[in-house]
Amino acid sequence: MDDDFNIALRQTAELMDRELRALLPQTEALEKPLFEAMRYAVLSPGKRMRAFLAIQSADLFAVPRLHSVRVAAALEMVHSYSLIHDDLPCMDDDDLRRGLPTVHRKFDEATAVLAGDALQSLAFETIGDMKTHPSAEIRLQLVNRLARAIGAQGMVGGQMMDIHAETTPIDIATITRLQRLKTGALISFACEAGGILGHASPPLAQALKAYSHDLGLAFQIADDILDKEGSPEEMGKATGKDAEAGKATFVSLMGLEEARAHAAILVDQAIDHLEPFGPKADLLRHAARFSIHRRN
Amino acid sequence: MDDDFNIALRQTAELMDRELRALLPQTEALEKPLFEAMRYAVLSPGKRMRAFLAIQSADLFAVPRLHSVRVAAALEMVHSYSLIHDDLPCMDDDDLRRGLPTVHRKFDEATAVLAGDALQSLAFETIGDMKTHPSAEIRLQLVNRLARAIGAQGMVGGQMMDIHAETTPIDIATITRLQRLKTGALISFACEAGGILGHASPPLAQALKAYSHDLGLAFQIADDILDKEGSPEEMGKATGKDAEAGKATFVSLMGLEEARAHAAILVDQAIDHLEPFGPKADLLRHAARFSIHRRN
Repeated sequence: MDDDFNIALRQTAELMDRELRALLPQTEALEKPLFEAMRYAVLSPGKRMRAFLAIQSADLFAVPRLHSVRVAAALEMVHSYSLIHDDLPCMDDDDLRRGLPTVHRKFDEATAVLAGDALQSLAFETIGDMKTHPSAEIRLQLVNRLARAIGAQGMVGGQMMDIHAETTPIDIATITRLQRLKTGALISFACEAGGILGHASPPLAQALKAYSHDLGLAFQIADDILDKEGSPEEMGKATGKDAEAGKATFVSLMGLEEARAHAAILVDQAIDHLEPFGPKADLLRHAARFSIHRRN
Repeated sequence: MDDDFNIALRQTAELMDRELRALLPQTEALEKPLFEAMRYAVLSPGKRMRAFLAIQSADLFAVPRLHSVRVAAALEMVHSYSLIHDDLPCMDDDDLRRGLPTVHRKFDEATAVLAGDALQSLAFETIGDMKTHPSAEIRLQLVNRLARAIGAQGMVGGQMMDIHAETTPIDIATITRLQRLKTGALISFACEAGGILGHASPPLAQALKAYSHDLGLAFQIADDILDKEGSPEEMGKATGKDAEAGKATFVSLMGLEEARAHAAILVDQAIDHLEPFGPKADLLRHAARFSIHRRN
């Protein structure tokens, strides 16, 4: 089973690499660095967890890969855009990401801002294109859900909360809301998108939503634990920055052991929600366990 | 006629103010500054030219204002987002915009980056919402056209070219392409959107496209002339920055007189393209003339 999961994860990474290369435009004109920065960010090695969740959720409903792969690519574009902007000197000021120079270090700040901006647009363009699904209704539903998930009342709102959490003491309820917005909203959209592409019945859509909700939070708690325990070499980026900045995390608020126990409970819950799908959902179950056992 | 145009322009500004206030979320939660920055940018006094073009183009086809006003609001969100990011220290580094502190001066850089990001998402969310048009096909067409107009092969690509034009000598053909992307693409989308909402026949859609194409370029040449001739007081922002930076503009490449003559020809052409619409298009004709006679 471990093998099945690792194979599926590697397959997703390969699929994404091919799909993203095809979707990212290239040019020899004056704006060339913009396109290069977009490719550099999106094609850098990553876990492709969001893509994996979208493809596996869609697979539950036997959605043709031709469609789910495009939504997965759009998700990775959005994820990359958020990382590029998050790494900027005025935000987290990070020099390394996945073991490589961040976009503003490799290119420059202006190019990083613009590459993030253009990746957001390209995600909407990709989802809106008829190759993603023959039905305009379905594509529009995906556009609308994505827009909400990543905007001021989703991912970007969470990033803003995160910045203010550096200077304002926050409690567990607030950090939970923060993380549900900052990382949870996009992870939830990944699973939801599979259901939308597959015309999921309301109870099955609800099951996926509940799964992604618990998974997203477990994933984030695990991130906080890795930030505390992982080495920069394993993580491919600076670690311990949150503690250094005196910023509240699940670990600082709950302690390491309680955080670990809380994440394990969330993973069990996430897996329980998949019950209606039977063995078809085994890879998603494995993804939930992986979320807290990964080393980076 | 001057009066009709000025009244229509003022009406658009009022409509936009109301619509944008309703569309922009508010909150008392930790992410409050994000919402405040978005409102600050979008509700600051502006000409609302893009909104005006969208509403007037839609009026040609008797599209209910209920619909065109929402597309117009989305256009103003995108325009605001592009200005916020354009003003950042790593880009044009501007302190003033429309006579007020730029978003990163009023708030901070991180909030400015995020406010721009969230405004882009909100534009897509606004257009995708069923209130914008009952037909999913129409809304999706708007989403797709907007995404292309503002991405790497549109507005953001033009911004990247603009940055490189500061250090690379460019000719008239290149600056024309640059401006068609940087400002022309969004202006063209404004007019195109009116046609999409109004189910324009191909020849009428083509006429609007040709109009917006010439208008967009005339508008930009006029901007270069104003940057050369206008005072910071009239413009509400620093002027003469392009010349100071040694950056090519239509004025530096063509000279003031030729630039003025070229813009006048483009305006005449733009007006000619509106012929099939008869007197219904008088306000759009006036907008074309206004584009080169404005003082800011």
